[in-house]
Amino acid sequence: MPVNLNAPDPQALHPVPGVELGIAEAGVRKANRKDLLVIRLGEGAQVAGVFTKNRFCAAPVVVCREHLASGSSIRALVINTGNANAGTGEPGLAAARATCEALAALIGCTPQQVLPFSTGVIMEPLPVERIVAGLPRALASLHADDWASAARAIMTTDTVPKAASGRYRTRLGDITMTGISKGAGMIRPNMATMLGFVATDARISTSLLQQACAYAADRSFNCITVDGDTSTNDSFIVMATARADMSEIADPGSSEYVEFRDALTQIAERLAHAIIRDGEGATKFITVRVEGGRDESECRKVAYAIAHSPLVKTAFFASDPNLGRILAAVGYAGIDDLDVATVDLYLDDVLVAQRGGRYAKYQEADGQRVMKQSEITVRVVLGRGSAASSVWTCDFSHEYVSINADYRS
Amino acid sequence: MPVNLNAPDPQALHPVPGVELGIAEAGVRKANRKDLLVIRLGEGAQVAGVFTKNRFCAAPVVVCREHLASGSSIRALVINTGNANAGTGEPGLAAARATCEALAALIGCTPQQVLPFSTGVIMEPLPVERIVAGLPRALASLHADDWASAARAIMTTDTVPKAASGRYRTRLGDITMTGISKGAGMIRPNMATMLGFVATDARISTSLLQQACAYAADRSFNCITVDGDTSTNDSFIVMATARADMSEIADPGSSEYVEFRDALTQIAERLAHAIIRDGEGATKFITVRVEGGRDESECRKVAYAIAHSPLVKTAFFASDPNLGRILAAVGYAGIDDLDVATVDLYLDDVLVAQRGGRYAKYQEADGQRVMKQSEITVRVVLGRGSAASSVWTCDFSHEYVSINADYRS
Repeated sequence: MPVNLNAPDPQALHPVPGVELGIAEAGVRKANRKDLLVIRLGEGAQVAGVFTKNRFCAAPVVVCREHLASGSSIRALVINTGNANAGTGEPGLAAARATCEALAALIGCTPQQVLPFSTGVIMEPLPVERIVAGLPRALASLHADDWASAARAIMTTDTVPKAASGRYRTRLGDITMTGISKGAGMIRPNMATMLGFVATDARISTSLLQQACAYAADRSFNCITVDGDTSTNDSFIVMATARADMSEIADPGSSEYVEFRDALTQIAERLAHAIIRDGEGATKFITVRVEGGRDESECRKVAYAIAHSPLVKTAFFASDPNLGRILAAVGYAGIDDLDVATVDLYLDDVLVAQRGGRYAKYQEADGQRVMKQSEITVRVVLGRGSAASSVWTCDFSHEYVSINADYRS
Repeated sequence: MPVNLNAPDPQALHPVPGVELGIAEAGVRKANRKDLLVIRLGEGAQVAGVFTKNRFCAAPVVVCREHLASGSSIRALVINTGNANAGTGEPGLAAARATCEALAALIGCTPQQVLPFSTGVIMEPLPVERIVAGLPRALASLHADDWASAARAIMTTDTVPKAASGRYRTRLGDITMTGISKGAGMIRPNMATMLGFVATDARISTSLLQQACAYAADRSFNCITVDGDTSTNDSFIVMATARADMSEIADPGSSEYVEFRDALTQIAERLAHAIIRDGEGATKFITVRVEGGRDESECRKVAYAIAHSPLVKTAFFASDPNLGRILAAVGYAGIDDLDVATVDLYLDDVLVAQRGGRYAKYQEADGQRVMKQSEITVRVVLGRGSAASSVWTCDFSHEYVSINADYRS
């Protein structure tokens, strides 16, 4: 059961001028399943992306990086579920390239103008012939305004399709921005959810689009974790079609760039939070906020230690205010000179531990009340500086074990 | 259900001359439970220890370090379960000291000659008056040959008491060595299981005993993980009573030191493996061996990434050879310049992935056969050097979630 997350209302997902979406059943892993999505971009679109830092990055990630680096103007993205095309060596790379070649031939562009994405089981050969056979059907279904179906077509263990959309006013003109994402397990992006795509009709220079993309990713997809497992396929892509009635955003110091960047960050954060709300087996949405650190990096270390602790996560599942487990995680997070005598711990507004020990007036009933909520903020104040960082995660339930013990079989 | 682990046969646990054990029901957390153990040492015993690196180390750990550093000859250890006396601030320290004072008064020594240990729930006040009240009953029950009951008295979520014992021949004379340990969750020692105690009648200098203690811990308790949570209370203590008929082991380059050190390491490894076999919810005992690294530290990083991955651990639980998850963990382990094209993966003797991709002749049936075993070795060959490291862990089951969602309540 996702935590306070519903399937997006198709009416609320604005079409983005210059973007068409096509879907097909390719039978990659299972029959009768929409598992192939083509995103077609009009001429003149800018595309930026950030990708997983997993050294075993998947073949499509390698090919995406190459094609983006080639500077060729991207005309289409092709995404399959059911198979991640990761840990597949040279044959995997050939399969990813073959997919790009087939789509390029069909739409009349070069293979370098196509970006491939895959998600699903790792270390199994990609059935590239089925994907290639599905492409004409996906192209036949192209139309501009079906983001809700596109969100559904990229799901794997997700239980709810994930999308976010908005219209934004910038100093240079109004823009539309719509995005989709997927992912529920193997989520500790670095970069990105397994997959996130945002399209906008803004006019923006390539370098600023890449800059805004990295900025937004660092404040959204790079701050979430379900299970601490960084996927081989994480990709976050931003497409700007330049169809809005505006002059180009080209000055990194301008207010219009900040407006664009913040709009993108807002959409990315909604997509990233949706992944946590639909995290495998999630029953609670947890914000871990660490304040008072010397720098952001040590705040993140502590936040991730808490967010990855199976003991903390099972306590949230049980609504058990066994909060010493949080202190233990703070203690082993890796700050070697941490003085625990300056550390405070809050659960929402309840002060639980003060200066490293249980707060004298803390009542278990107060902790219990917060633990029963479906949305909880853990706040740790380190008391050694002014930096802060937030990480979002979910609890750890029986359902997580069931899903991952059964996935594939 | 522990994995291939039975309660120790009391007959097989050799008494150690110079050591007496006393047990009582102190009612620390629950009534009618043997939750207090006193280990009394004869005059002239040497004691060495290594402790948790968690910054939120528990009050008894602070006091143990002080008392060992004071150079006073240790005469007794006092261990309670039911409460960890961690995250308890100044009152916690006072409680640990009060326990030492009470025991010292009863046996006629100074408080600095007593070492306190606690294990159980974190961040709850230690009911020191109940422990103090239980001490005379524990002393009344002192006798030399009840290691099996001592192992039982220090259990928390353990399902099986853990002990190991042996008689060893050194060049200087024969020695006896017997140890006990406890711990099933919050296990990613650094140092130590939650608690491990080994006694021997060997004569050995203080500095060599400490050196052997650290050596053994690094190859046993510091190589195991259940859930990646480093406890606040981890302690591994070695006591040498000097009652054996031998001259003192005093030369670090001598063969007798190596004999002693290896015997201690063997006992420590058996105690550490017992903790994994009885890991919370464990159904499988997994050895993760990483070879071909540039140094031991990067091998350990990779081994721990695999051993901590909830996705890998749930696949083991399901006997599902979803082995791409292992490659993904190798990829995100943090070796920034890892070339995956040199990485091989074995499951026992089955070659699964070669040079970064699925091995052409790998058959899923072979992987499946190994995954069904209760003891499995994952072997990763990095292909970039000659260093190697092993880590031991267990799988991740529904039972783990149940145990930790219910512990306390």
